[in-house]
Amino acid sequence: MVNYPNGKKHIEKVVKTSFGNRGMTLEKDLNASNSYFLRENIANIHKKPTPIQIVNVDYPKRSAAKITEAYFKVASTTDYNGVYRAKAIDFEAKECASKSFPLNSIHLHQIQHLQNVLQHGAIAFVIIRFTKLDATFYVKADDIINIYLNKEKSKKSIPYSWFVENCYIIPYNLLVPVNYIKIIDYLYF
Amino acid sequence: MVNYPNGKKHIEKVVKTSFGNRGMTLEKDLNASNSYFLRENIANIHKKPTPIQIVNVDYPKRSAAKITEAYFKVASTTDYNGVYRAKAIDFEAKECASKSFPLNSIHLHQIQHLQNVLQHGAIAFVIIRFTKLDATFYVKADDIINIYLNKEKSKKSIPYSWFVENCYIIPYNLLVPVNYIKIIDYLYF
Repeated sequence: MVNYPNGKKHIEKVVKTSFGNRGMTLEKDLNASNSYFLRENIANIHKKPTPIQIVNVDYPKRSAAKITEAYFKVASTTDYNGVYRAKAIDFEAKECASKSFPLNSIHLHQIQHLQNVLQHGAIAFVIIRFTKLDATFYVKADDIINIYLNKEKSKKSIPYSWFVENCYIIPYNLLVPVNYIKIIDYLYF
Repeated sequence: MVNYPNGKKHIEKVVKTSFGNRGMTLEKDLNASNSYFLRENIANIHKKPTPIQIVNVDYPKRSAAKITEAYFKVASTTDYNGVYRAKAIDFEAKECASKSFPLNSIHLHQIQHLQNVLQHGAIAFVIIRFTKLDATFYVKADDIINIYLNKEKSKKSIPYSWFVENCYIIPYNLLVPVNYIKIIDYLYF
């Protein structure tokens, strides 16, 4: 045990350095990536605010309006959209802790929204991160739409192997933790 | 005074039938128009939810999570975006009760956002409705950006005449109260 000059003891921590333990949620990683794209003039893509049903608001004197009763609403669209090389970009992002992706993680009207924007010519996809397997996939909207529309009644999830075979691993680095633009470039430009 | 068979008195209301009194706010008119565009497979454009800072949430047993403290946040982007003919669409909408449009109705970072999406190739604009003058204008983003960036210190508003000379009146009908797609078609397709 080494004591530091300030008299404090040096406590050795066991830091797990698995890649899976990058310590950031997918949402934070996407925020960091989107900020990078914005700063570097690559793309303008934002997360939409969480939809909320406001029931009651107080307007106290000399201070900001305070919402005192509100409820979360189910999103009717996807969480992320914006513009890249003049094309409309639209995607949903989901984390998955198990080894297969539960279909009910994505609402049916979100699937319908993806179908619709795809039809209007947007670049549409889903980003799915398997947190325990440390892999973040770019899933083309039409691929996941097909699964949802053709699913047998019994099918409740998509196995990890399907993603490995049919989707694109999104490259990771510290500056751009989820560089989905690279996959878009590869697929469309 | 005529009494109705149910005994209730017929109260004559003075209903003002000015076109300005269509009875709907710009937001409602845009929602109706966007619903029409969605239903008729013309475009997929949505209003973003109001950004809110959630401070406290209660999770009562057997009922929905209840937000008990939250505050409105200043929007860092515009209110509306989506996709039309594969192009990213991005716009802000404002009502104006006076005869000139106060510049501080639009936040500077919204102007910067419009500049940015424009640079990435989106079709960007602002919809401004003069409620008393009954006119709804399509203002190209670069036109309004120029005013904000080149404004003299003294200039605090844009006169109605500027809109008449430089912008496009958006056609109105009951089904599509704000048919801004017609202006987009005229300008870009």
